[in-house]
Formats: sequence, C-alpha cells, structure tokens
Amino acid sequence: MHQVLFLPHNKKIAVSDGESLIRAAMEAGVHINASCGGEGVCGKCRVIIEQGTVRGGISEKLSRQDRQKGFRLACLARVVSDLEVRIPVESSIDSKVLNLQATPRKMARIRQINLDELKEKGLFVPPVEKRYLELPEPTVQDNLPDVTRLVSYLKLKHDEHRLEVDLSVIRKIPSVMREKDFKVTATLARPVRDSGKTRIINIQPGDTTDRNYAIAMDIGTTTIYGQVIDLKTGSILSQYGDFNGQISYGEDVISRIVFAEKPGGLDRLHEVVIETINKILKRIIKKAGVDPDEISTITLAGNTTMTQLMLKIDPRYIRRSPYVPAATLYPPFRAADLGMELGDHVTALIYPAVSSYVGGDIVAGVMGSGMYRTEELTLYMDIGTNAEIVIGNRDWLACAACSAGPAFEGGGIKLGMRATEGAIEDFSIDPLTLEPMNITIGNVRPKGICGSGLITAVATMFEMGIIDNRGKFNRSLDTKRIREVDGICEYVLAWAEETQIDRDVVLTEPDIENLIRAKGAMYSGCMTLLEEVGLSVQNIDRIIMAGGFGSYVDLEKAMTIGLLPEINPEKVTFIGNGSLMGARMSSLTNRIRKDVVEVTKKMTNFELSETPSYMDHYVAALFLPHTDMDQFPKLKARLKERKEMKN
Amino acid sequence: MHQVLFLPHNKKIAVSDGESLIRAAMEAGVHINASCGGEGVCGKCRVIIEQGTVRGGISEKLSRQDRQKGFRLACLARVVSDLEVRIPVESSIDSKVLNLQATPRKMARIRQINLDELKEKGLFVPPVEKRYLELPEPTVQDNLPDVTRLVSYLKLKHDEHRLEVDLSVIRKIPSVMREKDFKVTATLARPVRDSGKTRIINIQPGDTTDRNYAIAMDIGTTTIYGQVIDLKTGSILSQYGDFNGQISYGEDVISRIVFAEKPGGLDRLHEVVIETINKILKRIIKKAGVDPDEISTITLAGNTTMTQLMLKIDPRYIRRSPYVPAATLYPPFRAADLGMELGDHVTALIYPAVSSYVGGDIVAGVMGSGMYRTEELTLYMDIGTNAEIVIGNRDWLACAACSAGPAFEGGGIKLGMRATEGAIEDFSIDPLTLEPMNITIGNVRPKGICGSGLITAVATMFEMGIIDNRGKFNRSLDTKRIREVDGICEYVLAWAEETQIDRDVVLTEPDIENLIRAKGAMYSGCMTLLEEVGLSVQNIDRIIMAGGFGSYVDLEKAMTIGLLPEINPEKVTFIGNGSLMGARMSSLTNRIRKDVVEVTKKMTNFELSETPSYMDHYVAALFLPHTDMDQFPKLKARLKERKEMKN
Repeated sequence: MHQVLFLPHNKKIAVSDGESLIRAAMEAGVHINASCGGEGVCGKCRVIIEQGTVRGGISEKLSRQDRQKGFRLACLARVVSDLEVRIPVESSIDSKVLNLQATPRKMARIRQINLDELKEKGLFVPPVEKRYLELPEPTVQDNLPDVTRLVSYLKLKHDEHRLEVDLSVIRKIPSVMREKDFKVTATLARPVRDSGKTRIINIQPGDTTDRNYAIAMDIGTTTIYGQVIDLKTGSILSQYGDFNGQISYGEDVISRIVFAEKPGGLDRLHEVVIETINKILKRIIKKAGVDPDEISTITLAGNTTMTQLMLKIDPRYIRRSPYVPAATLYPPFRAADLGMELGDHVTALIYPAVSSYVGGDIVAGVMGSGMYRTEELTLYMDIGTNAEIVIGNRDWLACAACSAGPAFEGGGIKLGMRATEGAIEDFSIDPLTLEPMNITIGNVRPKGICGSGLITAVATMFEMGIIDNRGKFNRSLDTKRIREVDGICEYVLAWAEETQIDRDVVLTEPDIENLIRAKGAMYSGCMTLLEEVGLSVQNIDRIIMAGGFGSYVDLEKAMTIGLLPEINPEKVTFIGNGSLMGARMSSLTNRIRKDVVEVTKKMTNFELSETPSYMDHYVAALFLPHTDMDQFPKLKARLKERKEMKN
Repeated sequence: MHQVLFLPHNKKIAVSDGESLIRAAMEAGVHINASCGGEGVCGKCRVIIEQGTVRGGISEKLSRQDRQKGFRLACLARVVSDLEVRIPVESSIDSKVLNLQATPRKMARIRQINLDELKEKGLFVPPVEKRYLELPEPTVQDNLPDVTRLVSYLKLKHDEHRLEVDLSVIRKIPSVMREKDFKVTATLARPVRDSGKTRIINIQPGDTTDRNYAIAMDIGTTTIYGQVIDLKTGSILSQYGDFNGQISYGEDVISRIVFAEKPGGLDRLHEVVIETINKILKRIIKKAGVDPDEISTITLAGNTTMTQLMLKIDPRYIRRSPYVPAATLYPPFRAADLGMELGDHVTALIYPAVSSYVGGDIVAGVMGSGMYRTEELTLYMDIGTNAEIVIGNRDWLACAACSAGPAFEGGGIKLGMRATEGAIEDFSIDPLTLEPMNITIGNVRPKGICGSGLITAVATMFEMGIIDNRGKFNRSLDTKRIREVDGICEYVLAWAEETQIDRDVVLTEPDIENLIRAKGAMYSGCMTLLEEVGLSVQNIDRIIMAGGFGSYVDLEKAMTIGLLPEINPEKVTFIGNGSLMGARMSSLTNRIRKDVVEVTKKMTNFELSETPSYMDHYVAALFLPHTDMDQFPKLKARLKERKEMKN
C-alpha cells in the first residue's frame, strides 16, 4: 500500500501498488476532469507529481516541458510509491469549492463465509462425510453379506446408525471391498431431518477420506455460477460462471415462461440450462483437479422460474395472477436424473422458494448471510435482473419482489449497458465547469453507462443542484454539456470522439426517470414491508446487499438517490452472489439444510401489487431522494450546508 | 359331483363331472393295469360299468361283445353320472390282496391368501392408497403453491401427515390440478417404517380412487410369474408365467453365475431378465385391462442370484466359499431405473434374502404363508430347481438350502422330465402281476416320469417289497418288467410301443439312488436344523410345501420314501408358488413390509456343508425311509402288517 496525498484538497488515501491514479483520486473524493474513461484520449486529467514516482502517465497530449514540470495523465499513471499529487485548479478557486467536489467513496464491506467461526461453533459439519474402515475378511464362520458387513462395522467403529444403502453402492460393493483387502471408505450422506436415515452413497477402495467434494451452484436468469468445494477444509477449489444458455430464448423470466408455453419450449429450456450446468461442471471439476467420482453432492439455488425450468416443471402459472408456483419445497433428487453429468450417487439439493417471485436464490442469500439467525433488524436486497427484498431477523421475515425493472443493469437507459468493459462505472463532476470525471471498467474509452455509474452520476448531479428532486436538469446552467435534443434534455458524459461508439455518451432525463422508478420501487417495497409489520425505516440496523452490482455502488450515493435508507455505511455489507453463498453454505453445514425449511415457512411473502399501501409509498418515493426528506436527515443537512455555502 | 363305487374293492369316491375314470380309480386307491398313460393304446384298463353311464371309453381294443357286456377302457371313459364300476380281477384273488393295492391319494390341502380374514383383522391396508380431494381454486388471497395446496388439504381432509412429493408429481401438478377444476386424486405410498414419510407418487384429475393396482412377481430361475392385483378388492385380475429368458445362458444358478463372470455377461443376464419381466408386465396389464399409469407399485421376490442379476449386481462371490452375497436387504428402487416398463412413479420393492442360498423367494414364502406369525412348529419346504427349508415359528426361524439336486424336477433321472405333457405323474402297481398303472399329464402316451410320479413309484414299490430299503430291486420276482440291462437293474414302466418316444420308459436303480439322495438331503437338512435348536422331528406340528411340484405329490408316499416327516396329512398344506404369494401379500398389507425386516433378521441360516452333524444325518437318511424306522412309526406298522398278511 502507498499513501497518496492530493493537493490542494489535502486529502490522503491508501491505495494498492499499481492502482491507477485517477481511481485513487475518485476514491479519495477528488475530482479530476476526465471524459475519455482513462485511455489518455482526452488528455484532460493532467496532474503534477510533486513527490514520489508513478509508472506511466506519459502521452503525446503532454509537451516535453509539461513532462519536465512533472505533469502526468492521471488515467495512465500507476501508483508505485507514496505520492504527493497536485490537481491544477483555477487559482481563484477557494477551499469551499474543493469541498463541493466528489465525496470519498464509501463502498460496502465485503463479507464472506467465516470458516473459522463455523468450525469454532461446531457448525462445520458437511452433509456428506467419509468414513474409513478396515474390515475383517469373510470366513465360513462369518459370511455376512457385503452390505451387512459394511453397515455393521460402520456402527461398531464409527457409531453410525440408521443407515441405508444406494443401489449404486450395492452394485459396486463386491468388487470394491475385495480390491484393497477389505479396506474401504464409505461416503455417508446425512439426512436433512434427524428422524431420517443416513445414506451410504459411495464406497471406494482404500482410504480416500481426504478427498470429499461438493458443488455449489447459482442458477441465475442471466448467469450460472458453480464452485467446487473441498469438504475437508471448506475452501473453494475452483469457480466459474457462464451465461445461462436460455438467454437466446428471452432475457428475463417472463419471456422464458412465454417460450416455455410453446410446443417443445419447456423441454428446450430444460435442455439448454442443463447444458450450461454441465459445461460449468466439467470446467470447475477439471480446474479443481478432482476425480468426478469424489463429488458427493450438489446444491443449487435459483429463482422460482429458473428452478422450475431446470426441473422441467411447467412455469406458466407463475406469470398469471394469482401467481402460483408448482412447488416451493423440493425433495432431494438424483443429479443424474436431471441430466447432470455427475455420478449416480450424487444427490441434488434444490433451495426451497417462498413464492413465484421470491425464489430459492433469495432464500439461499438469507441462509448464507446468516440474517435469519441475528437479532438485528436487517434489510436484505438482491439487485439483479430481478430485485427482491427481505426484512426481518431471527424472529420474523417479510419478503417481496419489486418490479424495479432492469435500470440497475443498464436496461431502459438510452446508453445503459451491463457492467462490462467500457461502461462508465464511476463519475464525478466539477462544480464550477460541470466537466465530468468518467471512470470506465477496463480503463478504456466509454461505450455507455452501467448501474453503479448511473447511481453515482444522478446522486452527484442532484447534490450539486444540476438536477432537481424530480430528476430534471437545471436548464439555466452555463455548459454545452447540458442540451436539448428532439425535446429531450440530456447531459453529455463523453463526446463522440472520446468514445468507442462514435456518438456522444449521454444521460437523459428519461434515463433519470427510469432510475427513479427503479429505486422508488425498491425503497417503497421496503417501506411497505416495514409498515405491514409496524416498523419504520429508522428501525433498520443493518443492510445486506447481494447481486451482481452491489459491490460497486457508492453507498452514500445510493442513499442520496433514495435507493438505500440512510444508515451508517459501516452497517452495510455486500455478500456478492448471495445465492451461490447460500448454496456453498449448505455444503459446509448440514444445520443450514435443517433450518431452511423452517426459515422458508417463516418468510411471509407480500405481493406488492396486491398490498393497498404500496402505491402510496411508491408515489412518495418517485423523488430524489423521497418526498419526505426527514427520512434522509444527513442528506438534508448536507444540502442545507451546501446551499448556505453557495449563498 | 358324482359318486363312483369300485368293486370288488368296495371303495367309494366323489369326483367332478367329466373326470376320467382311471384318475378316479387312482384317487380311490384302486389299481387298474394301465401302461400307456391313458390314450387307449395298451387296452389293458378294461372295466365293467355295472350301474350308471360314462362318456366315451370305447376303442377297437374292445370287441362288440365286450362292449355289450359293459366293458369300457377306464382311461378313455369320463364320469358323467353316479357309477358302480367293477375291476376284473383273477377270481382266485382274495380280499386281503385287494388291500395291498394302491392306497387312496392324500394330497396336500391348497391354501390361499384369505382376504376376508385379512380384512377382518384390519390388515388389508395396501402400501399404496388413493385419496380424492376437491380443492379450492387459488385466489390472490390464497395463492399457495400447487404442491402446498395438495399437501395442506390432504392433511385437512384426510388427516395425512409427513408427506413428501415425487418430482414426477411436481411436474404434473400444474396441469393436472387445472384439468378438472382442482378436483384431483393423489396416490400415496406408505413408508415401510412408521418413522418414514408417506410419498405422494401420483396425481390424477378427478376421482380415480376406484382404480389402484399393484404387481406381484416371482423371479424364478426357470420361470417368472406376474400378477396384477386390484388394491381396492385385493383380488388377482390377471396372471401369467413365462420362462426366464436367462435359461439360454444356463439352467441353474451356478451356470448363470459362471456366465455373469464373462465379459458383458452380467449386463446380458440383466437385460434378458428385464426383457422377460417386461413381456410379462405387458401381457398381464393388458389382460387385466388397466391403465398402466394406475399401476402404483411392484413387489418382486427371487432367490439371491436372480435378485442380484435382476439388479445388475455381480454374483460371483455367491458361488465361492464362504458364499457371500452383496446384500440381503435392498432399499426401494424406482422400477423404471431398473428398465421395467412402468410409470416413473412406480417403486419396486425387492424381498430381502437371508443368505446366498436362502433368498427372497423363501422369505416371501415365509411371509406369505404366515408361518412367522404362528405358534406351531412349522416346516416350510420349497422344492424347485433349488430346494430350501425353513423350520420355526413366531419366536425363531432356522433355514438352510439343501443340495437336493434336480431329481424332483426330473433331473438326473434316466427318463426324468419336468411336469409337462406326457410325464408319468401318478402310478400304482398290481401286487401279484407287478403290472403298472401309469397316469400321465394330459392323458397321453408317456414320454418319461416327473417328480411326483417318481416319488409315488418308488414309495409304492418299496411298500410292496419290490425294492428294498436301499432302493434295490428284488431280483427274484417273476416279471419281465424287472430286468438288467448293461448291468443296471430297472423296471419297465411302459413298453416302447406304448410310449411317444419309441423306447421303453424305465425306472433304474441309479434313478432311485438319485431320488434317495435328494430326499435324504432335504430330510437330513430338517434333522440338522432341528438338532441345532434342540428339537426333533416329532415336534413338527405343520408342514407347508411350496414350489412347482408340491400340489401333485401324494403325501403318504412322500412320507413313505422319507422325504417328509410322518405327520397327519391334514397338517400339510400346499401354497403353490410361495414366492409369488409373498409378493402378492406385500401388496395387500403394509404390515408385511414392516415385519419382513425383523423376520429376515430372525432367520438363522445354516450352511449345511459347514455344520458338522449334517453328514451323519445325511448318511442315515440314505435309506427308504431312513435308518431309524422309529421316525416313521405308521409306515413301520404298515410294513409289519403287510409282512404278516403275506406270511
């Protein structure tokens, strides 16, 4: 880590070796004009290195004299030592204006499964365990059947009771037992309920207790992720994600259901998702370097529609009022029966759902994040192609799906895009010149803007008064970046020549409206749930964010637009793919699988469209941040301060 | 029924209308010379009808005068009214000699499952039941998942708890529920243990509770039998048997195992037995006129080797000391997984075995016959390609497989054959002329002799002193029927011209030795088991015979040769195919399936070859009936009486 001091702002930040200087500035909350996303094209992000050295940062945009004076392009310069960096600003500028610039990034802390804690609490009890046995050889006096011999000695040596044996094991047992002189390892799959039986799902010659693996998988509408987990240590051996092959048949769940209703459609969608799953399985198993026969179990989590399609269950009633799924709780299946290329002995566990629109992916997140075991009132948000919220604690849980639309993933935004290379993911604006500072994924010229960039841009512009609380531009501002085209007002984030797409990358008023509707839907969903249980937003102790984009969102900005309720950013954590986390958690501790049925029953589902108060909450949330500013006291104070400063 | 009085013997018997007169005579214990088996070829069975009329009985062997005098051929005459029939005997014969003739038949009573008794005792509780429901339609206020709706109302309306749902049901439920306005019938499969769950294995639109069927199947080494059972009434709707397709790969279990050890052998034997099963399934389902979708369960019983081959489990260690089977207890399987052409929802239950040579077929017989629930000390014998015995009662059970060899099925006998058309199945002999009375299956000219004929012939000859207690012919007798060919002494049952095979049908001393070894193996097996538990043959209260041939055996004759211990023939019952009976019983009452695991554990297996006392018992049993005549007091008395009569 290196210390970087930005002058004249006097803001200091610690960054990793090799970090780009412009990202360091953004993180410190220091604005540097930068339109082109960091490819050195616009040449605007000139800074002076006063102390220390950087790698790179030199371009034809800088004259020899400039270079000698220490000028570098911030987007091309990498931090390789402690630095003092001066941002050239108009000499007339006063310190107050500097403070109007971007605030330092406040990202959510990333939380992962704490293996040590699980182990300490005795919860690290994988649902599949191996037991090694040295059996006595049969004799005329002791000619027990092979299976009986195995079961008896599991009882005698390992205190294992209530065992039942799979056919695949009975088929293998005569040869396997005799392969290494009756030294064998049995793989035992624990029952979900204590009253159930432990299944002997595999038998191997010799001692293989060190090699016991599980698969965790998230079946997303867009992407499917898989992990190979070492059940001996709990660690992830490999991971891979790929697009769900169903994408060719529709982007969202509704269009998939429509396709499934066509003749042969359900079979087709089932096939392609299994193809994707098998592709991922093959890849992660190879990458982990494990023997496929030593995969003992797979846990899958997905939304209700993805689950039904994967299991080849007609999903047509999911999209029709009263939105009835076929099932929410599934028995364990044999993975091979579903077409998964895994051993005959592998059981597939499917995360249960709550309703048609709060699926197993959300339940997995609730389980994996541990929110169902805490006393604190927690708001869980999963923002992806679909958006769901859960509020509650260990005593109660309320949940709902929000019709947020795809704005957070760039959908419905004129130049919106997914968070891939070329997307503006971070942004600040010079309060005087209204020049932007764009940061793109991959540090390349911009192609468009993704969800986190959108939130930051709208929040920043709102706080600076460039847009009002209805998301409309202040038309009196003196900049050619704000303009009207075909009657629609927009802000030019990057000029055509600075982009990869040969046209201006803009942010329009309809884009902002879409974002406001999306965040309004989520916020009002929370409000409605809270009201239904007699609580208010002030009661929220903790926010857990899951989903593709949560880790890149500036929390303060998300609160500024009213997407998140205003709470101490320290209390917000990001768990990434909650569905995958839950699936992995089920592989690590059998306890989860016992608890999940109870938790699912406890989760009260609200169909927001059928909840009368929802519409009022929604209309009130269609402002930045909200009609009721008292719900955002810190923002209210900041805006007041800013106003006073300007006057 | 008609009354038939035989003169001069003065023996009366009631027979059914249309019965052949010669069979009536045999049953009454009246000897009539008859070599040709009942086709009118030899013309020896001349009788005079003194009262009443017969149908047929006329042949060119009878002159016009004879016919006018009332002579008929007994083998061709059918009883159609009450009769008085005179057998022409030498005028010099005295009544004592008449009594030396054949004794009346004493066949085992045939016992079947008593459905009424099962129902009275509340045991008629099939393991699969149907429940009809009229469900409320989902609304916005009540949008339970389809499965949850079903499960909730099964609880509410039918007090059904601890339910779990099969994937195939979840796949059908959305459309089936909506097909007849949420009126559905659920098929429930009960757990074997009370702690288990009831599985919902099928769902159908409307009320189908009247249509619920099961399959029972016996997987024999030679023949496979199947039945369709109506679970509403308990009755058998159809039945069919066919040769096990594996016969082409070996006649007995050992040759099948040898074939299974060849490359691809196991797969092949698995395939062909499944082919035979499917052929039978198709036939019996069609014959019963039921919808295959309404078959809910199948129970299969077979010996240990047949079971392992059916399940594709390597049987090689069954034939090698110390004779270890892969398993004796099997979990329930999905029938379709084994290749059976039955619905996805159909569970196959396999009868558990005791050891490598006391298999599920025997356990099924023990369960089906109810011997495990009685206080009486019972001897259960299953005589087929293999022979097994079980001795015990509700408190204990001991069992063993006997190396009886195939003599009872005609194997190892010079002119032995299976009990098919042309086999001599019954026999008597004239004590003076030593002329035979042969009765063949199908009343056609003889081709050979089957097990029951062999037992009767040997017993009769022994009792009449034609053979001695070592099975050797009395060479001093004056008849051309007893002769020596190539140093082997034999009795000509039928001359070549009276047969279908253009050679004499004979019974040789080596044939008799084989029979003695076979019966000796079975009897000494019983003795060994009894001795091991501290009892003796006098303690046996009841005999149950199972297997292909039991119903045709004259019990008194079987006791005379020492195959069965001497007990009141009333106490002997015949249950036919015990394996099939047990399989059917499992379909009628779930109780059996709960009990069978306990019973199997209770059955102590003796490897006779490893039990030291066995060889002594065996050697002692290699006589007619036994070295120790005190074990056969009634026979001893009869022989004494006969001796006195002769002197």
